[in-house]
Amino acid sequence: MKGPTDIVDAVLAGDPAAVARMLTFVERRADGVDEALAKMHQHTGRAHVLGLTGPPGSGKSTLVSALARHYRDTGRSVGVLAVDPSSVFTGGAILGDRIRMSELAGDSGVFIRSIATRGALGGLSRACLDAVAVLDAAGKDIVIVETVGVGQAEVDVISAAQTVAVVSVPGLGDDVQAIKAGLLEIADVHVVNKADREGADRTVAELRDMLRLSHPRPGQWDVPIRRTIGTTGQGVAELAAQFTDHLAWITDNGERERRARDNAATRIRWVVEQLVADRLRPGVTEFDHAVDEVTARHDDPLSAAKALIAGLSSDTQEDFS
Amino acid sequence: MKGPTDIVDAVLAGDPAAVARMLTFVERRADGVDEALAKMHQHTGRAHVLGLTGPPGSGKSTLVSALARHYRDTGRSVGVLAVDPSSVFTGGAILGDRIRMSELAGDSGVFIRSIATRGALGGLSRACLDAVAVLDAAGKDIVIVETVGVGQAEVDVISAAQTVAVVSVPGLGDDVQAIKAGLLEIADVHVVNKADREGADRTVAELRDMLRLSHPRPGQWDVPIRRTIGTTGQGVAELAAQFTDHLAWITDNGERERRARDNAATRIRWVVEQLVADRLRPGVTEFDHAVDEVTARHDDPLSAAKALIAGLSSDTQEDFS
Repeated sequence: MKGPTDIVDAVLAGDPAAVARMLTFVERRADGVDEALAKMHQHTGRAHVLGLTGPPGSGKSTLVSALARHYRDTGRSVGVLAVDPSSVFTGGAILGDRIRMSELAGDSGVFIRSIATRGALGGLSRACLDAVAVLDAAGKDIVIVETVGVGQAEVDVISAAQTVAVVSVPGLGDDVQAIKAGLLEIADVHVVNKADREGADRTVAELRDMLRLSHPRPGQWDVPIRRTIGTTGQGVAELAAQFTDHLAWITDNGERERRARDNAATRIRWVVEQLVADRLRPGVTEFDHAVDEVTARHDDPLSAAKALIAGLSSDTQEDFS
Repeated sequence: MKGPTDIVDAVLAGDPAAVARMLTFVERRADGVDEALAKMHQHTGRAHVLGLTGPPGSGKSTLVSALARHYRDTGRSVGVLAVDPSSVFTGGAILGDRIRMSELAGDSGVFIRSIATRGALGGLSRACLDAVAVLDAAGKDIVIVETVGVGQAEVDVISAAQTVAVVSVPGLGDDVQAIKAGLLEIADVHVVNKADREGADRTVAELRDMLRLSHPRPGQWDVPIRRTIGTTGQGVAELAAQFTDHLAWITDNGERERRARDNAATRIRWVVEQLVADRLRPGVTEFDHAVDEVTARHDDPLSAAKALIAGLSSDTQEDFS
């Protein structure tokens, strides 16, 4: 049975089966996944990572399909990650959305995958950031991360993108309210999808009012509002052009570098925390001994902690070098 | 200005002003507080730590006052920690409760303190566990931790006690339901307070039914139901006797040792995580350098993490030894 490090070369070559398997390793945090990600790291940083979020019914998945088709038509390869923090509840909907995307399924230049993790919220962010790295290393020019914008986990996930699009749709009454609640600050582009529906002008106007209240300071990105019709592809090329403009803008002003540094800092912290947590659990001799000594008051928590950290360092050298 | 380590001796001598100041250091996680706790550690493990929880209006604080009075009358010193995870909302109530306790305020054998932390839930558990250690080291025979049993944070806090009492009161309709929701598993003793009220028999019967459904296995503690009237002190001596029985029971069957080990493991983990987190933040040269290298793809997150852990060890030796 091949482990994560065994399939790194196949992932780097863009083999869809290897990419799929690596994403499963990432979701399950299989042994060796951090080593595999380390090997892939130098091949990352090339993709444009798009985050796309909006309420259920806003036609996000159709829009993502249309975007993917546009990118394919213009010669770019695409990876799509549909993030689902609570698959128990929305599993059905996600599945339905995926089926609608199946017209793209025969195209090896498009890779589509739902990603979910049971367990901690942090787990989802990590699985998602790692999955983006895998698709990036696999040579995808564009990686689209799609979420239903409902919770903090999803805001965290989507914030890791370079360009964040928030999708609204006419006729969902509390839509704009929901956006106000948490997504306004993270939107780089607003999209009014299903723009042929009645009420599209009002939705655009409401968004414009909202943005006016948070009027950009000089030198700040002026968040555009784009109209699209996902089902026909209308407005999609213009939306993609806007994404490219935004990437150029954050590249020029250093924001792209700043986000990359945040991302690197987060990844380093996660790995350190993992290595540390692996050593601080029952069954690890040094930890059990420390617990014994502190329980018996032969040692105190602080000096026990320092001794464990000292040991950790040599363990780390031994086990991983 | 004296820091935490400067007042350890005064705390160990039981000086109330020093204890109060140390608890403030603990709440604020002042510099040096882990060092002070380390010095106090060998003087802990003597107190009987009681957790007392129940809904607002159950007369918990009056009951705690009555318990404190009983313990004082029988020659034991007492520390009370009123834990309040959301002081914004319940600050008033807590203050009111404290005023009702003021009859004990002139007695230096009783130490009463509210504890609250803004910020992370984990922060509250930690502050509380540390505060218990301070009162224990200060020589209190009994430490009572009192919470309003509403959230996970409070369940975590109360679980750290050796003996947990869940307080019910007749006539709060959804009371028993609330207990079912989260507190049933952690109750070592059930208390029906205000037992002179109409409906007390029904509350006792409901609790009994509930306990019957979770009938204890052989060798398991048989959770008793005690009736009290906090305002008159009726049933309080019997309740205290029950607490003592429970402590003897967990001591005999090894459960006390098991809880002490869990407690030690948690404390060690917290200190390690703190020492690690202190080194993984912007402004720390090694961390900034690692972020630079990973961002530039000169290094990967895994090997950067290992290098940081190796450095951590020597830093820890330097700074703290």
